[in-house]
Amino acid sequence: MSVTVVGSIAFDAVQTPHGGRERMLGGAAVHFALAASFFDDIRVVGPVGDDFGDDEYAVLRGRGVNTDDIEHVAGGKTFFWSGVYHENMNSRDTLETDLNVFETFDPKLSTESEAADVLFLANILPELQLNVRKQCDTAKFVALDSMDLWINIARDALVAAISEVDCVILNDSEVALFTGEREVVAGARKIMEHGPSSMVVKLGKYGAALVTPEESFWIPAFPVDFVSDPTGAGDSFAGGFVGCIAAHGGDATVDVLKLAMAYGTAIASYNVEEFGTERVARLTGAEIVQRVEELRRITSFDTPEVALKG
Amino acid sequence: MSVTVVGSIAFDAVQTPHGGRERMLGGAAVHFALAASFFDDIRVVGPVGDDFGDDEYAVLRGRGVNTDDIEHVAGGKTFFWSGVYHENMNSRDTLETDLNVFETFDPKLSTESEAADVLFLANILPELQLNVRKQCDTAKFVALDSMDLWINIARDALVAAISEVDCVILNDSEVALFTGEREVVAGARKIMEHGPSSMVVKLGKYGAALVTPEESFWIPAFPVDFVSDPTGAGDSFAGGFVGCIAAHGGDATVDVLKLAMAYGTAIASYNVEEFGTERVARLTGAEIVQRVEELRRITSFDTPEVALKG
Repeated sequence: MSVTVVGSIAFDAVQTPHGGRERMLGGAAVHFALAASFFDDIRVVGPVGDDFGDDEYAVLRGRGVNTDDIEHVAGGKTFFWSGVYHENMNSRDTLETDLNVFETFDPKLSTESEAADVLFLANILPELQLNVRKQCDTAKFVALDSMDLWINIARDALVAAISEVDCVILNDSEVALFTGEREVVAGARKIMEHGPSSMVVKLGKYGAALVTPEESFWIPAFPVDFVSDPTGAGDSFAGGFVGCIAAHGGDATVDVLKLAMAYGTAIASYNVEEFGTERVARLTGAEIVQRVEELRRITSFDTPEVALKG
Repeated sequence: MSVTVVGSIAFDAVQTPHGGRERMLGGAAVHFALAASFFDDIRVVGPVGDDFGDDEYAVLRGRGVNTDDIEHVAGGKTFFWSGVYHENMNSRDTLETDLNVFETFDPKLSTESEAADVLFLANILPELQLNVRKQCDTAKFVALDSMDLWINIARDALVAAISEVDCVILNDSEVALFTGEREVVAGARKIMEHGPSSMVVKLGKYGAALVTPEESFWIPAFPVDFVSDPTGAGDSFAGGFVGCIAAHGGDATVDVLKLAMAYGTAIASYNVEEFGTERVARLTGAEIVQRVEELRRITSFDTPEVALKG
């Protein structure tokens, strides 16, 4: 199998209550690719500028990620985002967004990227997501991320893109914005009416929910001792989630989806322990498996009979 | 076994996005008692005024709750609270708090209430919690709830009360306020340094966490189709949680605590489906068991081996 991810490649500047970085490798496609690289062959499609150099390529290639479809825009600058996290770490303010080469990004997929068995459409303009999805017409499993901006200003295009994918990944406030539904399951099912057979609702530091036509599944965030930087947690989750499905041949049965939720959660938990890609870049498969097992342990309970009155 | 709960008995007025009630039975001790009544014999200790009548007693007695220690203050009025819930239902504004007879409440326990095997100290002045706890000196399991007010203005007294109980139940913002710790487990362990052997951290609509010296356990809120009124959810949770421990002889092993988390979660989920005590007053044991089983189903996953790269 192979996985193609299309999305942003960025430099990020972040400040959190625990410190900050002036400039670190980031972007949805990067965080996704590093996380997914534990499961399958990954190809990244996204634009960079002249400031994107050997050190950045080395992080991706160090995890075996194929960078042939990273488009170098001569004379351009790489997407830059800076933000500051609030005390509770579950919300942040964007200080600066310089789209740079990302502003005119028009994904060009090689034959190899088009032939992906599994496709992840990270958060970009919905029209572009739909175009890419049509190019990858043999993909067995396609997942899509989006954001409040597109829900607000490009709803129809987003619906069109959603109608062509298998799984949508949004956070709970985006689901509420999109559907007007306060409850996670009801909101997810409304989105699934457009076509997807499953949906993941991210709950930030509280974990994530999986919704299928028949059931729902809930997993907490892994309780780390210390959160340094939440940047990229959602995309690392998506990388572990989609990667795990790819490792199962793109066959997204409910059992595979649940296991994928655990792998996504485990990798995201490592991501937040250090800044940017620092932790995941040196993560090992054994460490991931350890947290997946731990997640199972901290959520499991037996239900022996209790005699109730009434 | 028998359970004594000491706390507020109230009339509540609430407005939510789905409607409201001008005056409904409420109060921490009431919600707790109704939930716990499925597991054991419950005695309520709390004050009411002349406005508390047969209809209100009937709700408690309808679930077999012993009301002998409800103190009728002649000429007084029952505690009144009114509030409005915001769109996301996870936060609310208090419009009015009339303590009335609750302002001078000094719990007087009968011999029977003092002899409880299990004691729940609902959210009242920490000095009173400590006094009651000392009166119930044969209790095998004692849990305590509190609030931001006491953390802010009566911290030493709260620490003194906490040091004499087995389990503290707070929400995550209260834990952060109390300890300065952002992470649930680290914050809970700091509180447990004062003596308790376990702690429950309520996460509102996201569920709850149990923290023991060796491990943590996480359970989501049960995903109801529709939340009418969150009032009393936390106290219903506590009633199911403490009640389940009482049903196990007050023997709070980790397995019993986990099962108790599930029972508390199940009953709280029914509580929020209608206003005030309306739903729990006509709840059945079979309905509770059904949701406990469902909670197990929607949180369980297998972890077959996945071949990872690196």
